[in-house]
Amino acid sequence: MTHVNTADFDVYPRISQLLRVECLDRWLTLRWHDGFTARFHYLWLRDNCPCEACVHQVTKEQTFELLAIDAAIKPVSANVVDGLLNLVWPGNHQSTYDSGWLRYHSYSESPAADPVPQPILWDAALGAPPTFDGAAILTNDDALLAWASALASHGCSLLTGVPKSANVGDVARRLGPVRDTNFGLLWDVVAEPDPVTNANTALPLPPHVDLPTREYQPGIQLLHCLVNEATGGESILVDGFRLADEVKNTRPDLYETLCTIPWDWANRAKTSDYRFTSPILVTNTQGTVTEVRLGNWLRAPLTSVPFDQVEQAYAAYRYIFALSFDDRFALKFRLGPGDCMVFDNRRILHARGAFSGEAGHRHLQGCYTERDELYSRLRMLHRAQRVEAVRVCTTSSL
Amino acid sequence: MTHVNTADFDVYPRISQLLRVECLDRWLTLRWHDGFTARFHYLWLRDNCPCEACVHQVTKEQTFELLAIDAAIKPVSANVVDGLLNLVWPGNHQSTYDSGWLRYHSYSESPAADPVPQPILWDAALGAPPTFDGAAILTNDDALLAWASALASHGCSLLTGVPKSANVGDVARRLGPVRDTNFGLLWDVVAEPDPVTNANTALPLPPHVDLPTREYQPGIQLLHCLVNEATGGESILVDGFRLADEVKNTRPDLYETLCTIPWDWANRAKTSDYRFTSPILVTNTQGTVTEVRLGNWLRAPLTSVPFDQVEQAYAAYRYIFALSFDDRFALKFRLGPGDCMVFDNRRILHARGAFSGEAGHRHLQGCYTERDELYSRLRMLHRAQRVEAVRVCTTSSL
Repeated sequence: MTHVNTADFDVYPRISQLLRVECLDRWLTLRWHDGFTARFHYLWLRDNCPCEACVHQVTKEQTFELLAIDAAIKPVSANVVDGLLNLVWPGNHQSTYDSGWLRYHSYSESPAADPVPQPILWDAALGAPPTFDGAAILTNDDALLAWASALASHGCSLLTGVPKSANVGDVARRLGPVRDTNFGLLWDVVAEPDPVTNANTALPLPPHVDLPTREYQPGIQLLHCLVNEATGGESILVDGFRLADEVKNTRPDLYETLCTIPWDWANRAKTSDYRFTSPILVTNTQGTVTEVRLGNWLRAPLTSVPFDQVEQAYAAYRYIFALSFDDRFALKFRLGPGDCMVFDNRRILHARGAFSGEAGHRHLQGCYTERDELYSRLRMLHRAQRVEAVRVCTTSSL
Repeated sequence: MTHVNTADFDVYPRISQLLRVECLDRWLTLRWHDGFTARFHYLWLRDNCPCEACVHQVTKEQTFELLAIDAAIKPVSANVVDGLLNLVWPGNHQSTYDSGWLRYHSYSESPAADPVPQPILWDAALGAPPTFDGAAILTNDDALLAWASALASHGCSLLTGVPKSANVGDVARRLGPVRDTNFGLLWDVVAEPDPVTNANTALPLPPHVDLPTREYQPGIQLLHCLVNEATGGESILVDGFRLADEVKNTRPDLYETLCTIPWDWANRAKTSDYRFTSPILVTNTQGTVTEVRLGNWLRAPLTSVPFDQVEQAYAAYRYIFALSFDDRFALKFRLGPGDCMVFDNRRILHARGAFSGEAGHRHLQGCYTERDELYSRLRMLHRAQRVEAVRVCTTSSL
C-alpha cells in the first residue's frame, strides 16, 4: 500500500482502511474499517488540497489562493478509491487526500493529536524531578526523547553526569537555538562583590521565574552545576500550574484576580530598563493557565491597577506567594557538579536557599531556550519513529 | 535641592514641591505645590521602602520580605520634610521617599507614565514609513531615539543609506541582542532553486507576519536590502492593528471571532516541526489588541476548533485576510540597496509582489529582535536625557 502524502514532510500511517464517503450539504462524512467516522467541511478540504498547484512541492508551503474560491464551494464528485479520497471541484480541479493524513487531521470528534504531552501537575509527592543520564541525551535520540517528553509533561527535569566536555549551551542545543538576552548567551550564577542581580549574591532567592520583566519571558531554563562546595544553597522547584490549581480550589476569588488584574514587573538596571505588565496567571482562550509570572524582587511599584483594586491585587499576590513557600509543593535537592536542572521557566518556580561560601565555591552556568524548540524536537523525534515504522512495514511487505 | 533616589538606578526630577501629607485609614494623600494630589496605600508604601535593609543597594533589587508584614500595616507617623516623605512604621522601621519618585509612581489618578509611546494606527494616507538616516542611527543617540520612538508608535520604519560596513545585525544591536531561530541569526531572502520556504522563491507573498507558528512570534523584524536589480518584488506594509480596528467597526461579530476562536499555525519542515494555536487577534486583559497573527501559507489544517465553529472561523479569517490586500491600508515602495525596513512583526503585516530575476538579482538580509529590547533602549535614552537635565540643573544652581 503506497503512502501518499504530498501536503507536508510528515508521514501518516494508515491505521485502518478508508471505506466510504457520504456527501451532505456543506460537509462530507468519511467512514473507516474500524468504525471511526469523521466529518470534513468542503471549504476545509478545498483549502487543504495537497496538489502541486496548491502546495509548493519543494517548500511544502501553500500557494493556493483561499480568497479566489467561494466559501460555499461543493465538490461535483467524491469517491474513495484504494484508501484515497478523490474530490472533483467545479472547474475540474481535482484533489486527492491520503486516508492516513485525513485520519490524523480529523477534527469533528476531537482536536487532532499532537505528540507533545499534556502537562502533568505535581507536588512534593513527586519526590524528585524526573532524572536522566546527561551523557546519553547528548548522543542518543531515544534518551533525548524520554527526557524531552518528561520535560514537556512535568515541566522539570534533572540531568546527571553531564560530561565535562559539554557546556550548558550544548545541552540546550539538543532542543534548539539558545536564546540570547542582555545577560548573554550563557551566564554564570556565582556570588560576586559587585552583582547586577540578587542571583549573584549569597542571598536566598524566593521561588520565581526568570525575566517576568519581559513580554517574552524565556520558555526553558537550564542551570548547570559546575562547582558546589558551599554550605547551603539548596535547590527548590515548585510547579506553578499546581499552585494555580490550589488557588483555584481554595480561593476562587483570588484565582480570578490573579488571572485578570495585572502586576507590573521591572528590571531597571544600570544599562537596561525592562518592564512588562501582565497578570500573574496567564490563561488562553479556553481558560487554561499557560504561563505563570512570579518573581518577588522583580516586581515594579504597582501603578497599572486602578486605586480601588490595589488591595485585592496584593491579597491575591500574597496568597500565591505564600503558597510558593509551602513544603507540600516543593522539591528540594542539592545540585552537584555535572548536574543540570532543566525546567519550563513559564510554569516552574525555582528557588535557592542562602549559602555561605566559606566552605568553598558555588558556580552554576545557565542559559535559555524556548518551549517552541522543545516541542519541535519532540515532534521530530516522533516523526523519525513513524518514518522508521513505515520503512519496516514497507520492507517486510516486499 | 538633593535628589534622593535609593530605589533604583533611574532619576526622577522634582517637578513640583511636595507640600503635605494627610493620613487616612488604609492610605495617605499627598499634595504638591502645583495642586497635584495622589493617594498611596500604606501596604504599597511599605512594600516600596527604598532603604538599604529593604533594597540591596548594589543590585537595587528588593530583599524586603513582603509576607513578614501585616496587610493592614499603618505608619505610626508621617511627615513631609524638605520634599521627602518620612514614614515610621510599627517596630520603628523608617522609610524615606523622594517626592520625584513618588510623583512618577503615583497611581491613584492614572497609571504611571512610561516613555514608550502608545501605538498610532495608520493606513495608506501615511504615504510612506517614517524614514530615518541609517548611518546616523548607528552612531548618534538623538537619531536613535527619534527612530526608536517612531518604530514604537507606528510599528514600522525605513532606514536609508545604511553603510556597507554595517550588516543588519549591527542595526538590530542598536536596540538589543539579535534573536536566533532555526533560520539562523541572520538569514537571506533570495530566490533559490531548493528553497525551504516560499520567502525564498520569486512568488508573491501575501501580507503576513513571520513565525506565527511559534508561541514566541518575533517582536521586531529587520529586512536589509543589499541588491535589488529584479523586476517587481515591491515591498508592502499594512498596520495589523488598523485592520483589527476596521474589522471591529465593520463586522463586530467577526472581530469577536478573531479574538476568541484560535487558528492552528504550523511550519512542518524537513528538520523541524513548529506549531502553535492562537487567535488571530490577541488581546490583553483590558481588551486591547497586542498581537496579530496572520500568515496564509503558515496555517495548519484547522483542527483545534469545534466542528460547528469551523465555518465561522473561516468567515472571520477570510474577512481580515481580504482587508489585508485592500489598497486603503497599504504602504507600497521599492527597497534599494542600503535601505532597511524595520517593523513590529507582531503588529505589522509585510508582503512582497512577485518578481522576475531576469533583469538582475534581489537579495535581502534579515534578522529579529524583540519589543522588549526596543522599549528598554527607549527608556534608557530617555533616562540619559533626565540624567543630563538634572546635571545641568545642579551645575547651574552652584
